[in-house]
Amino acid sequence: MITVSFKPEGGAGEVEAGSTILEAAHQLGVTITAPCGGKGRCGRCRVICERGCAEPTGAEHDLLTGEELRNGVRLACEAVLLADAQVIVPSNSRTVNGQILSEDAGDELTLAPNVVSRLIQLPEPTLADQRSDFERIADTLEIPTADLRIHRDALAQVTPILRQNDFCISVVMLGNVIVDVRPPMSEHPCCLGAAVDIGTTTVVAYLVNVSTGERIATASALNQQARYGHDLISRIEHVQSSTGGLEEMRSIVVNLINRLLAEAAEKAAVRRRDIYEVAVVGNTCMHHLFLGLDPRHLAQAPYVPVTRGPMDVSAADAGLAINPAGGVYSLPVIAGFVGADTVGVLLSSRITERDHPTLIVDIGTNGEVMLWSGERLLVTSCAAGPAFEGGQIRHGVRAAEGAIERVWLRNGSIGFATIGGAHPNGICGSGIFDIVATLLDGGVADITGRIADKEASEDLPVQIATRLRGEGSEREFVVAERDDGSGEITFTQQDLREVQLAKGAVRAAVELLCTEAGIECEEIEEVLLAGAFGNYIDRRSARRIGLLPDIPLGRIRGIGNAAGAGALAALVSVDERRYAAELASRAEHVELMANPGFQLVYADSMIFPSSI
Amino acid sequence: MITVSFKPEGGAGEVEAGSTILEAAHQLGVTITAPCGGKGRCGRCRVICERGCAEPTGAEHDLLTGEELRNGVRLACEAVLLADAQVIVPSNSRTVNGQILSEDAGDELTLAPNVVSRLIQLPEPTLADQRSDFERIADTLEIPTADLRIHRDALAQVTPILRQNDFCISVVMLGNVIVDVRPPMSEHPCCLGAAVDIGTTTVVAYLVNVSTGERIATASALNQQARYGHDLISRIEHVQSSTGGLEEMRSIVVNLINRLLAEAAEKAAVRRRDIYEVAVVGNTCMHHLFLGLDPRHLAQAPYVPVTRGPMDVSAADAGLAINPAGGVYSLPVIAGFVGADTVGVLLSSRITERDHPTLIVDIGTNGEVMLWSGERLLVTSCAAGPAFEGGQIRHGVRAAEGAIERVWLRNGSIGFATIGGAHPNGICGSGIFDIVATLLDGGVADITGRIADKEASEDLPVQIATRLRGEGSEREFVVAERDDGSGEITFTQQDLREVQLAKGAVRAAVELLCTEAGIECEEIEEVLLAGAFGNYIDRRSARRIGLLPDIPLGRIRGIGNAAGAGALAALVSVDERRYAAELASRAEHVELMANPGFQLVYADSMIFPSSI
Repeated sequence: MITVSFKPEGGAGEVEAGSTILEAAHQLGVTITAPCGGKGRCGRCRVICERGCAEPTGAEHDLLTGEELRNGVRLACEAVLLADAQVIVPSNSRTVNGQILSEDAGDELTLAPNVVSRLIQLPEPTLADQRSDFERIADTLEIPTADLRIHRDALAQVTPILRQNDFCISVVMLGNVIVDVRPPMSEHPCCLGAAVDIGTTTVVAYLVNVSTGERIATASALNQQARYGHDLISRIEHVQSSTGGLEEMRSIVVNLINRLLAEAAEKAAVRRRDIYEVAVVGNTCMHHLFLGLDPRHLAQAPYVPVTRGPMDVSAADAGLAINPAGGVYSLPVIAGFVGADTVGVLLSSRITERDHPTLIVDIGTNGEVMLWSGERLLVTSCAAGPAFEGGQIRHGVRAAEGAIERVWLRNGSIGFATIGGAHPNGICGSGIFDIVATLLDGGVADITGRIADKEASEDLPVQIATRLRGEGSEREFVVAERDDGSGEITFTQQDLREVQLAKGAVRAAVELLCTEAGIECEEIEEVLLAGAFGNYIDRRSARRIGLLPDIPLGRIRGIGNAAGAGALAALVSVDERRYAAELASRAEHVELMANPGFQLVYADSMIFPSSI
Repeated sequence: MITVSFKPEGGAGEVEAGSTILEAAHQLGVTITAPCGGKGRCGRCRVICERGCAEPTGAEHDLLTGEELRNGVRLACEAVLLADAQVIVPSNSRTVNGQILSEDAGDELTLAPNVVSRLIQLPEPTLADQRSDFERIADTLEIPTADLRIHRDALAQVTPILRQNDFCISVVMLGNVIVDVRPPMSEHPCCLGAAVDIGTTTVVAYLVNVSTGERIATASALNQQARYGHDLISRIEHVQSSTGGLEEMRSIVVNLINRLLAEAAEKAAVRRRDIYEVAVVGNTCMHHLFLGLDPRHLAQAPYVPVTRGPMDVSAADAGLAINPAGGVYSLPVIAGFVGADTVGVLLSSRITERDHPTLIVDIGTNGEVMLWSGERLLVTSCAAGPAFEGGQIRHGVRAAEGAIERVWLRNGSIGFATIGGAHPNGICGSGIFDIVATLLDGGVADITGRIADKEASEDLPVQIATRLRGEGSEREFVVAERDDGSGEITFTQQDLREVQLAKGAVRAAVELLCTEAGIECEEIEEVLLAGAFGNYIDRRSARRIGLLPDIPLGRIRGIGNAAGAGALAALVSVDERRYAAELASRAEHVELMANPGFQLVYADSMIFPSSI
């Protein structure tokens, strides 16, 4: 055994000669980033070690400069310890970038996982030292016994492991609780965690090595609660109207998460029992259903959640099949319709660290709008409805192969593109945005959202006019012909009304938040689009139909699954959890329904811009 | 609703007009002793209430003096509140005596239960007050949400209970965790707890209303682990030698406790789910087996326990069938053979509050000796073996009907008495003490423990001499004739050797503790005998055979099940738990085996006193 100490953070102890610096760090509970998983590829785990290491490896020669090598800089995952050593871990070797936070967030995130593993060597008991095994562990960890707790199952394993391994043991801690103990040399990686984003439509699980920040696998699936309705209200109604409905909804999502965790663990060839913590985000209804809390009051005034703060529950209570002593952390929610997903977006986007007014719009099945004025953080939700995801649109479909995802008008002709270039089978969200923009640009629909009737159509170019037919709310625009002869894909007057209601709700929310913050919409310097929505829609179309205020396209950007990124951030750092709680407290929830001006602004917001 | 406030402790709120003061106190989480269970019998729940109450009842006229009644003294369980009132609770109406602490302890115990129930009325949510249900509870309890936790199952019940009861709810707290919520008017008593004394031979469960200190039922049974041996070593060997032996031992005791709790709950006509906490004592081996911890190292040098501190585990983890969110608290242990039972004795006897040297001897299957010198607290254990309980004695039996419990020599004749006056079927512990004392007094055995051989018997009175027969280790003394003709009940030379070894071990422990403390045995001013042992043996016989030092009989007293009393004290007061932890830390464990003088003192201690 050799002695290694880490600076400036601390952490010292004995490790096997021949360990890499990264292995030694993890044994001693010291965090070093290794986004590539310690495979000598990314070069992020730079540390300084002047003595005690074997010669630099090929990977180190490739990834480090000559000057770095001369100064003792090493890759922790490559440098093998041969003798006693002191290792300096620069602060940027404790941070993770891009893969955890939203792509847009400038800041990096310092790993400070709630789960850490420590390999410790205990002094053997003697008649002169009759401390119990547990006290011996606490004393070696330098934690007062009164502050250290241990799970009963772990405690039951302590004694045999110590006696079979010369009083050397690896302890896994979740906060101040020892949740597991392992023999010193385990083939299984430690410590794993999972971030789960429970969307109304889709549930995603990210499996992460929380000691390194490495994302080791991802799995996702449709939320099967959808069998009781695609929108939140239908699901709440199911809970209200059927005996056992709440428990049923809970089981669906819990079973689904368990399936995703199993799938991700299989992909990464790891054991589920090595997952010690799951961090969860979801809108308030998903949050409630996952925890088995009655969501019915979310949907009726005054829209009160059962609880809003961050929740720590045991994996057993949550029903998740990870390590039985593991924990589940849920980010806080803000209001009945502004959930943990929004807190995740606020967190991962670093919105309050910007020095200019910033707007974030996150539209999934429900819409959340967040405005940072530079001083105040305002949030609200709006019932966008499912139109943006293809729901309640006659030929609407989810974004999958064959969905029309782009529509354009060029030289008086309509063109379109489908996902995967397949034969068209319907229109998905981004296609719907484009169609509406096209209808407006082509003069087919006016600013009130009315599609030209027979008489008015006579003024339109013939290629357009011939695509129109029907009357009243049945008047429709033919977008494409199905290849299989099963008819045409059209966009109806009724469809346009659905979009108009949805975009009006979002736009009204934006307007009212600006009013509340005392700024003009035009003062917003950045608009960030979160969620699948943000990644796929055409920003120009979104602005053309008036979903967004009239600001330059260059200031509008998609930031991907920012809610999931928030869950990942919370998973790997307790500091991020504190920050999330601060953001949730700081966010001022604006209840649109309680706002006396809402109806008026909503009505105005439904009008389409005459042109942009 | 009327408003009631309690002084000096605090606690105020609204209650139904027509409630008694005791009901109001419990609704508001204020503790008032009511040893009789609030039945208007004991008169212990005196409070002062000058206004707002109905006229005194018959019970109050019976139990209070005229002067008390003039001064506004009332019985909390009788006085009915009619209007807003202020109630003063004198400090002695918060204490329990005799029934919780050992009979000998002078002090009374102030109730400070870890489980309390509070009835609260919440403000209803509005659009202007969208706090979640949980925040509303925390704010009403005046506990910051970050410091208050709630069990998931309880949280799931909050919303329906609030909506069905006009936002009135009763919350049950275990420390800072809400473990249950109930409708405001429940027919079921709250809050119940149980103290469990896991003896090697017998397990006892006391069911208690922790809000009043009332003991409402008791149940006990033999520890069925005895099928693997009556002593600890055999049980440890079973764990060591059989696969699954530990889990099997654990199941036996857990199932037994569950059966006792069910039995006690049935006797008291209460529900097991209203039991929220169990406080447990037991020797270190019983403690380990109950918690599923491997006991094998307790029995081999250096005799190291798995853990020593107090343990808080969930009822689910402990396997106890009480409220599923309930908890189990185990008193700390001191060493491999000085367990939580000893800590219970130290606690309930208030040994360190005495100003004179005090010795406590607790002999069950194993022996523990505690010495308070006035400054230092020393404890040790000795392998007394089962002889004192009738084990390894040829005609030894447990203390049950027909067991010879008293033996005497009067006018040269042997007399005896059996339990229940039944026909004799063997000799139990107290009878064994008496026989040995009788043999010594009658000159049948000498100070080395040798029973007179044929030759020496000739000098004995004929009534005695004719009772002797056999030779060598088979030489025996006929105590009685079985009534059923199945032969005689004798006490053999071998039996006497067993007693001699056992008493020698205890006496050596006493001597060595005195030496360690730097006092003479004669300086001990009080000897307290704990356990069944202490209640039944003849103190004179115990002294005659030299188990105890030669001190006046008036200074020797039995204190009953002091270990169980310690568990009860810890159950009803968190202050007692802190005190128990202090005592466990303060106690200096003397390892007899590690003491170089032990063998010599042990040999000396086996000699019987020539006469007393």
